[in-house]
Amino acid sequence: MKQLHLLAVFLFVASLVHGQSMSSDSSMIRSIFDEALIRGESYENLRELCKDVGNRLTGSPGADQAVFWGKKKLESYGFDSVYLQEVTVPHWERGTTETAWFTDSEGKTTKLHILALGGSIATKGILKTDLIVVKTFDELKKLGEENVKGKIVLFNRAMDPANINTFRSYGGCYDQRGYGAIEAAKLGASGVLVRSLSLKMDYFPHTGSMNYDTSIHKIPAAAVSTRDAVLLMQALKKGKVRVSMQLNCLNHSDKTSYNVIAEITGKKNPKEIIVVGGHLDSWDVGEGAHDDGAGIAHSIEAMRLFKAVNYEPNHTIRCILFMNEENGNRGGKTYAASVKEKNEIHVAALESDRGGFTPRGFSLDGSPRQVAQLQSFAPLFKPYDLHIFEKGYGGVDIGPLKNGSTALIGFIPDSQRYFDHHHAHSDVFEQVNKRELELGAAACASLLYLIDQHGIK
Amino acid sequence: MKQLHLLAVFLFVASLVHGQSMSSDSSMIRSIFDEALIRGESYENLRELCKDVGNRLTGSPGADQAVFWGKKKLESYGFDSVYLQEVTVPHWERGTTETAWFTDSEGKTTKLHILALGGSIATKGILKTDLIVVKTFDELKKLGEENVKGKIVLFNRAMDPANINTFRSYGGCYDQRGYGAIEAAKLGASGVLVRSLSLKMDYFPHTGSMNYDTSIHKIPAAAVSTRDAVLLMQALKKGKVRVSMQLNCLNHSDKTSYNVIAEITGKKNPKEIIVVGGHLDSWDVGEGAHDDGAGIAHSIEAMRLFKAVNYEPNHTIRCILFMNEENGNRGGKTYAASVKEKNEIHVAALESDRGGFTPRGFSLDGSPRQVAQLQSFAPLFKPYDLHIFEKGYGGVDIGPLKNGSTALIGFIPDSQRYFDHHHAHSDVFEQVNKRELELGAAACASLLYLIDQHGIK
Repeated sequence: MKQLHLLAVFLFVASLVHGQSMSSDSSMIRSIFDEALIRGESYENLRELCKDVGNRLTGSPGADQAVFWGKKKLESYGFDSVYLQEVTVPHWERGTTETAWFTDSEGKTTKLHILALGGSIATKGILKTDLIVVKTFDELKKLGEENVKGKIVLFNRAMDPANINTFRSYGGCYDQRGYGAIEAAKLGASGVLVRSLSLKMDYFPHTGSMNYDTSIHKIPAAAVSTRDAVLLMQALKKGKVRVSMQLNCLNHSDKTSYNVIAEITGKKNPKEIIVVGGHLDSWDVGEGAHDDGAGIAHSIEAMRLFKAVNYEPNHTIRCILFMNEENGNRGGKTYAASVKEKNEIHVAALESDRGGFTPRGFSLDGSPRQVAQLQSFAPLFKPYDLHIFEKGYGGVDIGPLKNGSTALIGFIPDSQRYFDHHHAHSDVFEQVNKRELELGAAACASLLYLIDQHGIK
Repeated sequence: MKQLHLLAVFLFVASLVHGQSMSSDSSMIRSIFDEALIRGESYENLRELCKDVGNRLTGSPGADQAVFWGKKKLESYGFDSVYLQEVTVPHWERGTTETAWFTDSEGKTTKLHILALGGSIATKGILKTDLIVVKTFDELKKLGEENVKGKIVLFNRAMDPANINTFRSYGGCYDQRGYGAIEAAKLGASGVLVRSLSLKMDYFPHTGSMNYDTSIHKIPAAAVSTRDAVLLMQALKKGKVRVSMQLNCLNHSDKTSYNVIAEITGKKNPKEIIVVGGHLDSWDVGEGAHDDGAGIAHSIEAMRLFKAVNYEPNHTIRCILFMNEENGNRGGKTYAASVKEKNEIHVAALESDRGGFTPRGFSLDGSPRQVAQLQSFAPLFKPYDLHIFEKGYGGVDIGPLKNGSTALIGFIPDSQRYFDHHHAHSDVFEQVNKRELELGAAACASLLYLIDQHGIK
């Protein structure tokens, strides 16, 4: 009986402590959101990155300028340290000519809106040949070399509009862009067009990374807009379609670039690190506003918010503006290699790389216990309308940190509009809403705070 | 023991039945969302309403055209009946001249971006007088007649950015627009400017309804953009500010307009009605895309979705395109009066009037039991990321239906961007995202389906 009594007292005290902790957590999170919504600087920082720097493909002058901007910006906030980490990066250029058109069976010629895929080789002058269309690699293989050889293959599988999470639809079509040139070249095709990975019907082509296989010869590849893909299908229904395409992309040798890093030193466990990051590079069209200017703005702001609300973290909070997520992930790989080399302890890494839309939650790549820990934070986020706390993907940049103990966490904003602008000329600052962006920074800072307070093991 | 056994069997069977019902519900809801996302017509219907009809203030030719469009559109879907309900409506016009500027203490003159508030009287020629500024009615009263008389009062209370639900911030400032002219006139002011009810810092003024009191003389009132409100404050800090304003609004006598109504007749309980609606009128600027073209598109589409998935409702589903929500709610009042007169039974009424953004959930104005019933539907909406199911507001148009038994339900989309465009020139079709809009229609149709199946008492 006495034991039961003691147990009751213990549980009572524990619940009080837990209650106090919940209450101080919730008031800290309220302060973070207030600061972000009333005096947030994410939006103005994003404006600078989009308008004063602009797009910033790895290896470009824009990327160099972004590194300079990021370092200056982090220094301006007076964090405990700001430094660059050298990264050897690929260097591809779109070149100055990029044009395509098609002629239908009635002789009518129509312009195509294309963007070379990142990494594509150039055409030799104008590539002019017949078009064939497939939706899957299986379909392509069934056509066989006799039907594919010498032709341009249009990969025309559309993103599935029925998924609520548009990233799932993206995942269901990515292979066409990522591996289409390899599969088509195996059967002797002379070029590839890929229907843009977008759920919107418009004339914006969406670029993105592609792969070659060292054992298969390389052929040029470009994205066409969704509207153009439909026009091509209509023309093919009437008869033969001939496509002309010219790209003069350039693949240069590797060069030196940088991850930009800032730290707030932990006061209790300075050697245990919690990372927050996004990627500083973007594609070479538009302004990389949602991809991933938003993640850069979130990561910088998460650090600023800690200072603004006078929160001194127990662990070291390290903000990383990664270089080269889009076409190589050299920044993420280099960072993870240095972590391993230095034997640094990483409690968690949080990446924001899904745009600057209203926050919905977080996904965690880690153990069931870590997922449960993340889910235990959910009630604290309810007042801010975050409701997704689930096992899932972390992010490309933080992926190489995977080691069985570090929690890899992806920030999840609303995904409905993301692929309208992803890798396209339309990914500009004007597509970002201030409140949606600032809320994302507050959500990230709040999760970092909770992990700093309670761990995530 | 036998009783216990029987109870167990009963519970087992009940759980099976419940499980089957859950499973058929979830598959019906999946069909509704698939139809909306793959073949949805909300977006195209909204385009027609915004671009072919345009804005449609009660009493305007645009409103007449909207009634014509709405009736034709509903007829085109072949619902069981489509008809008009006569509504006597107010008729106010902005007039052709609407201009204002201010002169600061250094003699510099700057244009102001204004919109007369709906219902305002005209100025007599150019009203030119000194400006004073207050944030609250209390502050105004403290200034007293000696400081207010003959002047223009700027009501400059900004919407609170710290609220996550922006409608709460709107509610916290609405009195300035709604009653500012009455309070200022009581102290002898000659005119009113109201800081636009927007969370965005820009040059778009936001109009909206205002009130006069029959016992207080009327003074003209206009909204200024948030940016202009800041400029006026800066000028006032330097010294005296003189504002010139000219409005030539016209208040005409009432005229006849219509609610547009369509029905799918219930197959089991045709005399029990479930309403879905939005309002067909808009302000006379922009295109009324989010307010409330989106609600009109949702309501029409909810009915179309039922037909498209071959769902024959038990209750009569009545879609109402209400007239005159913005400046009088005569459509809502007329409809409720006719319901009372005919002794019609209304199970529930669902209104969409918060824009065409990603759906987050529903709020219900009704009994705790009805709220609990709404909340019991939440798991069925989880796959579609709806997560707010709470006691709250229904809507202006359906408000007069309140009778203690009809559940009044408001559709809740994400609110972050709503007040950027509300009642402003920027509320145009281009601000609406197709997927976000179609998802809203699917969410509304799904809730109507669940209420039709399970009731909401």
